[in-house]
Amino acid sequence: MIHANKQLPLPRILTLGFIVIIIVGTILLSLPISTNSGHSTGYLNALFTATSATCITGMTVVNTALHWSIFGKIVILILVEVGGLGFMTFAVLLFSFLKRKVDLTTSLLTQESLSIQSTDKVYRVVQLVICFSLLIQGLGTALLFIDFGSRYGFWKGLGYSIFHSISAFCNAGFDLYANSLTKFAGDSYLLLVLSGLIIAGSLGFLVWEDLLLFRQNHHLSLHTKLALVTYLGLIVISFIVYLTTEQNFSQHTQLSAGQRLIDTFFISVSPRTAGFSIFNYNQFSDAGILFTIILMFIGGTPGSTAGGIKTTTVGILLIKVWSILRGKRDSTFMGRRFSDDNVNRSLTLGFLVVITLSIAALVLLTTETIPKYMGFEYIIFDVVSAFGTTGLTLGLTPHLTIIGKLIFCVLMFMGRVGIFTVMYSILTTNHPDDEFRYPEENIMIG
Amino acid sequence: MIHANKQLPLPRILTLGFIVIIIVGTILLSLPISTNSGHSTGYLNALFTATSATCITGMTVVNTALHWSIFGKIVILILVEVGGLGFMTFAVLLFSFLKRKVDLTTSLLTQESLSIQSTDKVYRVVQLVICFSLLIQGLGTALLFIDFGSRYGFWKGLGYSIFHSISAFCNAGFDLYANSLTKFAGDSYLLLVLSGLIIAGSLGFLVWEDLLLFRQNHHLSLHTKLALVTYLGLIVISFIVYLTTEQNFSQHTQLSAGQRLIDTFFISVSPRTAGFSIFNYNQFSDAGILFTIILMFIGGTPGSTAGGIKTTTVGILLIKVWSILRGKRDSTFMGRRFSDDNVNRSLTLGFLVVITLSIAALVLLTTETIPKYMGFEYIIFDVVSAFGTTGLTLGLTPHLTIIGKLIFCVLMFMGRVGIFTVMYSILTTNHPDDEFRYPEENIMIG
Ligand SMILES: [K+]
Ligand SMILES: [K+]
Repeated sequence: MIHANKQLPLPRILTLGFIVIIIVGTILLSLPISTNSGHSTGYLNALFTATSATCITGMTVVNTALHWSIFGKIVILILVEVGGLGFMTFAVLLFSFLKRKVDLTTSLLTQESLSIQSTDKVYRVVQLVICFSLLIQGLGTALLFIDFGSRYGFWKGLGYSIFHSISAFCNAGFDLYANSLTKFAGDSYLLLVLSGLIIAGSLGFLVWEDLLLFRQNHHLSLHTKLALVTYLGLIVISFIVYLTTEQNFSQHTQLSAGQRLIDTFFISVSPRTAGFSIFNYNQFSDAGILFTIILMFIGGTPGSTAGGIKTTTVGILLIKVWSILRGKRDSTFMGRRFSDDNVNRSLTLGFLVVITLSIAALVLLTTETIPKYMGFEYIIFDVVSAFGTTGLTLGLTPHLTIIGKLIFCVLMFMGRVGIFTVMYSILTTNHPDDEFRYPEENIMIG
Repeated sequence: MIHANKQLPLPRILTLGFIVIIIVGTILLSLPISTNSGHSTGYLNALFTATSATCITGMTVVNTALHWSIFGKIVILILVEVGGLGFMTFAVLLFSFLKRKVDLTTSLLTQESLSIQSTDKVYRVVQLVICFSLLIQGLGTALLFIDFGSRYGFWKGLGYSIFHSISAFCNAGFDLYANSLTKFAGDSYLLLVLSGLIIAGSLGFLVWEDLLLFRQNHHLSLHTKLALVTYLGLIVISFIVYLTTEQNFSQHTQLSAGQRLIDTFFISVSPRTAGFSIFNYNQFSDAGILFTIILMFIGGTPGSTAGGIKTTTVGILLIKVWSILRGKRDSTFMGRRFSDDNVNRSLTLGFLVVITLSIAALVLLTTETIPKYMGFEYIIFDVVSAFGTTGLTLGLTPHLTIIGKLIFCVLMFMGRVGIFTVMYSILTTNHPDDEFRYPEENIMIG
C-alpha cells in the first residue's frame, strides 16, 4: 500500500476530505440564508442534505424546490459538482492553476479518487475530466433550455436547465419539482436529453477517454470493453424486464405507445444510479421493485459519477462464476485474462457490501415503522438506494427517524467514497506485513 | 476434475442419483396406499413431498400427520434417512455388505457426496457415519420416548420418538403435528433433546470424527476448528439477537423466564437448518425475520445433514474480508493459512447462490400472491428456507402455485445436492483445458 506520508495513508486522506466538504456544506445549509423561510433548517437535516448532495445521491428529507433559497440551491449544486467530479480533481486543478508542478502525493490522491491505475495518466485525465464534463454539461444545458426556456421564460428556464443538466450528468438525482420528474412522464424530448446526460456521466471518464482516443490508438482497454458490454447489456435487459412488468399502471396507460417506449427506456437508464423518477415506485409491480433494487445495487462504471458495486465488478463476477462452472482455470473476456487480484477484490467487495447492507437493514427494521400495506421492500429499497447513491425511494426516506437519517448518511458516504476506502482508513494499521507466513491448510466449503 | 468414467463425470452421477431417488419417492407417495383417505395425492404434491423429504427440507404442501398413512410416513422417513446420510454412503455400505472390495469409482462417488478430501478416508468415514448416526438416533429415540411414551402410550409413543429423532438428527424438519412444534413451546426437556439431535446432525461427521479421535491424535484439523468456532459463534450471536428482539409476543409472555431462555436457545439452533418451529414466524419482529433469513442462508457445516452456503464458507469469507481490510496478504486462522482456491471457491459459491435466489424471487414475485399485510419477506423467507433446506415458512409454501411448487423443488434440490454440483453437471463439457492462456489485463472495480 502506497502511503502519502508516514502518518496518513491515502484512503484516510480521501475519507477525511469528503468529511470536511460535508461539514462545510452542513454549516452553509444550516444558515437561515439558505432557506426560503429564513429559519435555520437544523443541523440534522442540513447534514443529511449536504451528505446527499456531496455523495450525489439525491435523497431528500425536505423538498428541494420549496425549502431552499437560491443560495441554498447553489450550495447544493456546488456540493453536487464537487462530489460528482471528485474533490481530488479539484485539488489537482487548484495546483495547476497555481502553476505549481503537481507533486506525487496529490497525483496519487487523485488516482485513488478516480480509480486510475498508472500515475502518469492522472494529469491528462484531470484535464479531460474538466473539459469533457463542462462541454457535456454545457451542451445539456442548451438542449434542456429549448424545453425549459419556452416553459418558464429566459432566467428561470436557464436556471432550471443548468440545475438539471448538472444533476443529470453527475447522476445526482436532485430536481426542482415536488414529485421528482413525474410530471414529465410524457415529455419524450426531455427524457431523451436527460438519459443522454445520465449515460454520459455514469459511463465514466476512462471509457470516454478510450473512446475519444480510439481513432488514434486503434485499441480499447479491457476495462472499456467490459464496461461497455455490461452497461449496454444491463440497459437491454432492464428494458426487456420493464417492458414485461411495468406497462399496466394508470399513469402509463394514458400515454401513446411511442411515449411508453421512451418512458421504459428512461426507467431502465435511471435506477443505475441517476435516481430521477418519472413514476412513483409504489405503483411498480413487486418483480419490478426487486429488479430495480438489483439495478441500484449494481450501479454504473467505476471512475464515473455512479455508485453501487459497479458494472465491471458484476461483469468479472459473472465471468468468474461461468468459468468455474465450465471447469476452466482462467476467467477470460475478449482474449484477455483477469488477474486473480481483480477477481478476488470483486468477490470480496460484493460480500462486504452485502454484509454492510444487511446490518443496516437489521437496525432500520427495528427503528423505522413500515406502513401496514408494505413489507421489507420498504426498508431494503431505500437502503440499497442510499448505498448505490441512487436516491430513489419507496417512501421511507422523508419519514426517517434520527437514527435512520444518521445510518443513511453513513451508507451514502460509504457508497460514494468506496466501502474499501472507508473501512481501510478506519481499520488499517501501519505495521508492515510480516515476512512470516502461516502454513496452508484446506477447508471444506459449500 | 476426476471422472468416474469417460462418459459420466462424478457430479453428474451424484445429481442423477438424487433424481432417481426422488422419482421413486414420488411414485410411492402418489399411490393410494400412501394416504389416509385412500385417494392418490397427485403427482405434483407427491413430487414436492418426495423432494422435500429427500433434500431433508421439511416443507409441506399437505399436512404430514393427517394426510399420509403409516405407509406414506415410512416412505417419507426412509427418504429422509437416505437424503440425510447421503445415498452415496448407502452405496458403499451395499458394496461392503456384498463383500466386494469398494472400488475407486464408488469411493470417489462417496467422497463427492460427503465432501471429504482424501480418498483413503472414505471407507473409514462411511463406517463412522453409519454407526454414529444410528447410535445418536437410538439415543435420541430413547430420550424422546421418556416424554412421548408417557404422553401417547407405548406404540404410538415409540413411533413418534423414532420419527422425530430421525427428523431432528437429519435436520429434516418433518413433524407429526398440525402446527410444527408450537404446542411444545413450554416443554423444556423435549426442546433440549431435539436441540442436541439437531446440533449433532448439523455439526457434520468429519467434525465428530475429529473430536472423537482427539484423545488419540491430540490434533484438530483446521476444518474442525473453523466449523466449531463459526457454529458456536452463530449460536451465541443468534441467542443474543433473539433475546433482544423476540421476547414480547403473546405466546412467549405466558411462559416462565427459564422456559423463555430455553425457547430462545431452541429458535437460535433450529433455523440453521432443522426447520422445527415452536412459534409462528408471522409473530416475529421484522428484525427477527430478517435475522432468521440470514441464519437460513448460512446453514450448517459441510458434510453434515445441513443446507445453506455453510458455516465454513461464511467463516472463510469473513476472515478474507477482515484480512483485506487490514491490508494483509494472507487469510489466516489459528496459525493456518487458507488456500487461494478455498477462498475463491467460497466467494464464488456465495455469489452464485445470491444470483440463483434473486432470479427465483423475481419469478415468484410475479407468479405468487402476497397477502395485503405483508411484503417481499413473504417470498424471500420461503425461498431462502427452501434453498437452505430449512423448511420454515412465513405462510407461502402451502399456498404455492404450480410454477411455485416446481421452482421450490429445484431450489431444495440445488440446496441439498450442492449448487456447484448441479450447475457443473449441466454445464461442464469434457473438453480438457487448453494449454494456451490469454494474456492478463487489469480491470477497475468498486
Ligand atoms: K443519484
Ligand atoms: K430442514
